[in-house]
Amino acid sequence: MNIGIVGLGLIGGSLGLDFRSQGHRVFGISRKAQTCERAIALGAADDASTNLSLMGQAEVIFICTPLSVMEATVLELIPHLQPDTILTDVGSVKGWVVQAISPHWHNFVGGHPMAGKSESGIEVAEHNLFAGCPYVFTPTEKTPPAALKAVEELVQRLDARIYHCPPDEHDRAVAWISHLPVMVSASLIAACRGENDTSVLKLAKALASSGFRDTSRVGGGNPELGVMMARYNTEALLRSLYAYRDQLDQVIDHVKQEDWQSLKALLQQNSDVRPDFVKN
Amino acid sequence: MNIGIVGLGLIGGSLGLDFRSQGHRVFGISRKAQTCERAIALGAADDASTNLSLMGQAEVIFICTPLSVMEATVLELIPHLQPDTILTDVGSVKGWVVQAISPHWHNFVGGHPMAGKSESGIEVAEHNLFAGCPYVFTPTEKTPPAALKAVEELVQRLDARIYHCPPDEHDRAVAWISHLPVMVSASLIAACRGENDTSVLKLAKALASSGFRDTSRVGGGNPELGVMMARYNTEALLRSLYAYRDQLDQVIDHVKQEDWQSLKALLQQNSDVRPDFVKN
Repeated sequence: MNIGIVGLGLIGGSLGLDFRSQGHRVFGISRKAQTCERAIALGAADDASTNLSLMGQAEVIFICTPLSVMEATVLELIPHLQPDTILTDVGSVKGWVVQAISPHWHNFVGGHPMAGKSESGIEVAEHNLFAGCPYVFTPTEKTPPAALKAVEELVQRLDARIYHCPPDEHDRAVAWISHLPVMVSASLIAACRGENDTSVLKLAKALASSGFRDTSRVGGGNPELGVMMARYNTEALLRSLYAYRDQLDQVIDHVKQEDWQSLKALLQQNSDVRPDFVKN
Repeated sequence: MNIGIVGLGLIGGSLGLDFRSQGHRVFGISRKAQTCERAIALGAADDASTNLSLMGQAEVIFICTPLSVMEATVLELIPHLQPDTILTDVGSVKGWVVQAISPHWHNFVGGHPMAGKSESGIEVAEHNLFAGCPYVFTPTEKTPPAALKAVEELVQRLDARIYHCPPDEHDRAVAWISHLPVMVSASLIAACRGENDTSVLKLAKALASSGFRDTSRVGGGNPELGVMMARYNTEALLRSLYAYRDQLDQVIDHVKQEDWQSLKALLQQNSDVRPDFVKN
């Protein structure tokens, strides 16, 4: 099959590597000529260009750009497409993306491969990045079943774990397990660095170890990504943030009232339930 | 030197292993005869007993029991001590411990070795557990300098990084980097498991990956430990919890107001500052 990939970063590049090794022809697009050259050199694309006309020969196209330019990219892309080209995206928010792209192109399938690394860019693209990872499809009643089937057959061969759900359900789920943790963790770092007793702050920095390291990791990550989550998943994120604040207030109340029995019950339930979330 | 260790768990056992390998004689105490036998068999003690009279020959004694029984242990221990025996403890909270023990024994040095593992007990004790880890001493004006010096000389040979500070400064620092993260992380798990849309909850559990795993780790740990932190460091923990809630409210406000510039500035500062906390 002729597969197009628009946006040759970690995700786009890794898709290209896998698809080529399965015998597909892969055509890549990047805004930078240098990235196109690297994608070809690394084996992530057979051909690559800064010019969207290359997409004229693609049967299925994966949009792998940042969310902020996804709609504009699709609008620029449309004049170059065959009437039956299938578009799919890899955005980490689905309600907004599906709403933005569906009106422009009927043969569209919303998707979200949940694989990542701390580094980004074509240089860190790798084979089998998606193996064992979730890949969520968010078809709506307007999604052509044949388009979904075509994309799904490609993704199945990446050995990803495929899920289906409505876009808003996806967004509420990732708000809990991906976007809320970033804000919770960010607030932790921000609160700690706000300590105004310099001796205590210095000591805290010296003594911090694995507990702080893990709890603060996602809150100390790429600021652009954090803003993007909040910007494109505002409603679901706020819903989770409010529930989280209520929960935090309850914990504060247990501590303030010295209600150790309730605090212990809460921690025990956490300890019992957490394995359901981290079994993968 | 004759060293006593009361409480033969991970910390007490690991101290015993290191001290014995440096040529000291180590005498251990456990409530369980079986633990005494295991401590001797594993090389963590030359002799061990359930009877505190064994401590009569110790020059320096490390109290390695849980915080909840530390004061009672010291009271039982006192009749067996020589007048110049030095006591030191390894409790993770210092204000409460120093206040509880100092009135009973003048030759006392508060200490906190910040090494740990997810497992506990004599079976997981190991050589060099403290190497490279912080070891905080919290002397007060009542602490005899000679007692501090004696304990410090022992700890230096464990290759730990030694810090000194007043007990309340220690407690405020560990509230930030150890106790607050547990409550922040616990509230995250509790909020997530409170989702009442079962489809979203099921999906969240299926999709959770490294971000959720790391941010939820310390909040899904041993409930007893979490309660102990709150119970013995209540004031400093509440101080951090209130500051954290203010910070969280600010994040919520940025998201609600769609003030992406402020959110990005906050995340950028986090990303700039976090390495100061996690450099070790």
